[in-house]
Amino acid sequence: MARPVKSKGFDTLTPLEVARRRFLRLVPQGPLGSVLCRPEKALGRVLAGPLRAPRNVPPFDRAAMDGFAVRAVDTFGASATNPLPLKLRGDAAPGRRPALKVAAGGCMRIATGAPLPYGANAVAMLEHCRERAAGLVEVESALTPWENVSRVGEDVRRGDFLLASGERLGPADIALACALGLERLDVARAPRVGVLSSGDELRAPGSRLKEGEIYDANRPGVLAALREEGAVGVDLGIARDEEGALRARIVKGLSRCDALVVSGGTSVGPRDLVPEVVSSLGGPGLVVHGVAMRPGYPVGLGAVRKKPVVLLPGSPVAALLNVDAFVLPAVRRMLGENEAALPRGATVRARALRRITGAPGLTTFARVVLRDSKDGFAAEPLRVSGSGILSSLVRGSGLVVIPASKEGVESGEEVEVRLLRALPVRGARRAR
Amino acid sequence: MARPVKSKGFDTLTPLEVARRRFLRLVPQGPLGSVLCRPEKALGRVLAGPLRAPRNVPPFDRAAMDGFAVRAVDTFGASATNPLPLKLRGDAAPGRRPALKVAAGGCMRIATGAPLPYGANAVAMLEHCRERAAGLVEVESALTPWENVSRVGEDVRRGDFLLASGERLGPADIALACALGLERLDVARAPRVGVLSSGDELRAPGSRLKEGEIYDANRPGVLAALREEGAVGVDLGIARDEEGALRARIVKGLSRCDALVVSGGTSVGPRDLVPEVVSSLGGPGLVVHGVAMRPGYPVGLGAVRKKPVVLLPGSPVAALLNVDAFVLPAVRRMLGENEAALPRGATVRARALRRITGAPGLTTFARVVLRDSKDGFAAEPLRVSGSGILSSLVRGSGLVVIPASKEGVESGEEVEVRLLRALPVRGARRAR
Repeated sequence: MARPVKSKGFDTLTPLEVARRRFLRLVPQGPLGSVLCRPEKALGRVLAGPLRAPRNVPPFDRAAMDGFAVRAVDTFGASATNPLPLKLRGDAAPGRRPALKVAAGGCMRIATGAPLPYGANAVAMLEHCRERAAGLVEVESALTPWENVSRVGEDVRRGDFLLASGERLGPADIALACALGLERLDVARAPRVGVLSSGDELRAPGSRLKEGEIYDANRPGVLAALREEGAVGVDLGIARDEEGALRARIVKGLSRCDALVVSGGTSVGPRDLVPEVVSSLGGPGLVVHGVAMRPGYPVGLGAVRKKPVVLLPGSPVAALLNVDAFVLPAVRRMLGENEAALPRGATVRARALRRITGAPGLTTFARVVLRDSKDGFAAEPLRVSGSGILSSLVRGSGLVVIPASKEGVESGEEVEVRLLRALPVRGARRAR
Repeated sequence: MARPVKSKGFDTLTPLEVARRRFLRLVPQGPLGSVLCRPEKALGRVLAGPLRAPRNVPPFDRAAMDGFAVRAVDTFGASATNPLPLKLRGDAAPGRRPALKVAAGGCMRIATGAPLPYGANAVAMLEHCRERAAGLVEVESALTPWENVSRVGEDVRRGDFLLASGERLGPADIALACALGLERLDVARAPRVGVLSSGDELRAPGSRLKEGEIYDANRPGVLAALREEGAVGVDLGIARDEEGALRARIVKGLSRCDALVVSGGTSVGPRDLVPEVVSSLGGPGLVVHGVAMRPGYPVGLGAVRKKPVVLLPGSPVAALLNVDAFVLPAVRRMLGENEAALPRGATVRARALRRITGAPGLTTFARVVLRDSKDGFAAEPLRVSGSGILSSLVRGSGLVVIPASKEGVESGEEVEVRLLRALPVRGARRAR
């Protein structure tokens, strides 16, 4: 009387994309809550709500150059051969609005960043002026109104929508939040993800190995990947391959965490106790067990007590690839972050949607917005892009670097775009 | 008697690459020292010395499958129609080497990960065995020696060179360090970079602005960028535009930090005091003042008291682009990190150097090494790449994903490689 050895194997392996979709449906759409965070501490956090501008940046008309604040009309007709004299009425220094007003025929010395005095509507550059001993300044160049002035709100206008909920914050975002004077940002609470290893042969680093034992590599690897993604990894240690011990650790982990990752003992062999323990704890249990991927097929995906659970194979390559395929997307979902196709700093190729102007002899860093087009990406240069327009680094998708030797990029030309933010997967791009 | 207004302007602008080279020559080649760090805390740190394997991984021959440990020779000729009987001598469980030896005609039940009993040299998979009531196991498939066995050292051999000094550690590196039982890693001390803002109009977030004042955005932005790169940003606050105040803060910053960044007041106008203050503190001072880039030309680069100094323009876009162009490369140099062309997680196109085998019906994650070739990159699949070969995620440059519908990638075919590590700039690739 022969009886088959217990080994049901994996009858069916679920295709990777199907498995991911099925699993992610069980993962709560985040943010799981929000916390208030000082901008200086918010690097890498994910916005829990849209970022709108509570005030104008700059908050007042400022000199964009060192020179003299003037009424543009008083300079009309001025040139090197026809310098026009203006009476010097005083100084406008950064940090306070001068009480004095610039009247017809007058001017004030002004430094970059200083508020434009009342009455003035342009700044004549130092290089185009000559100061006379008698308190007279000669202007050698005609100015149009608001020339060399950073207008109030030209970077950001009060009420402007700047970033959508779900955006991850980089250095430029932090800078802009500070420019806006925000003291707190509403960011997603970091999901707590418990990580448990199972296996009688596993030892923590620092222990002395007996024959037959190995060091547990998966738990620290998974915890590092979680930290990098912005989750709080909760180290649940190593459980023995014994049903009671496993159950106790898993129940404890579920009560303390938003999601649970168990590594090892997750296949379908006689010692693979984890799937049964997990299934016994309540619905829906594992909705996928066995995924059509290599390495990494013996992975289990599901939820218990409304908490997502991922069972990783003990083989470390399999485990880490499964983390990438399932755990990190779940973390991003719990954070409320859009699924990204590419990280910030990566490059994509795109076609210029319009001409992108370079500066002869200078390496130009043009900020562009990427748009989907039928044959890939189109890069549209931002119209407002002066060196003071901080929002261009926040609203822009990426940078196009135009070498000093090149005058610009023609419309339709292919360019390389270095991403200023993670590139959303197609279709997931949020309306701005 | 006309006298020209003080405004020397920038007589010459140094090309960007020249400026970077000239500046980086003044930046000490790191690491500036090393610290010992537990692997679990080493995510994102840069190795201060090469990582070599102090032991074999796995440390012993292990079962790679659930089944029966056998002598391969005893299975020669076995098939479904000619099952060969073996005497079941006991169990080999993970965690300890069994005392029993597998003798001719014998076998032991074994679970994945358990040490292979002495005498055995293969594992017959459960699926290919039938267990008889009388303690007899029938093997229905012939095995070659070491089939279904993870050999000692097959992942990493003691003494193996794994990672060069200067590599930044990701989750797989952390996992491998743990698998090796390393309790401490020798990582680069994080360089301390002081960040000072200068400007009478600047206020810290949380202050109430008076007319003419703005919030300081550059300092928090620069500090965030530094943190992200692995430096310790030292906040030196806001200095007034006054020579004594500036000098005091700069001297204090230089004494506490490995490098200094000053934002604002760095151009050539009458109120731009920072360049003079810096130059007065000792050689070589600024070696570049004015770079042929837009935005960002009024940047100053140099060193004082052997500490690199970067003077950023106050305009925030200019400042952040200068950080990217000069400050972060300096940080990487002080960390001893190779200059990277692309970050981990980015993708590059490459041609397959050999056939890359997929698995029919499974999404395959092949690990490849990228090599420079005359027309771009060539991707060479790693030969040893089982799901237990953790080192494949450390030695590999990237992953090639072969869809389930595809049998593999032909030699010469173009593939997309997702980088497992930052891609070194050409020529900077270190010997392995």
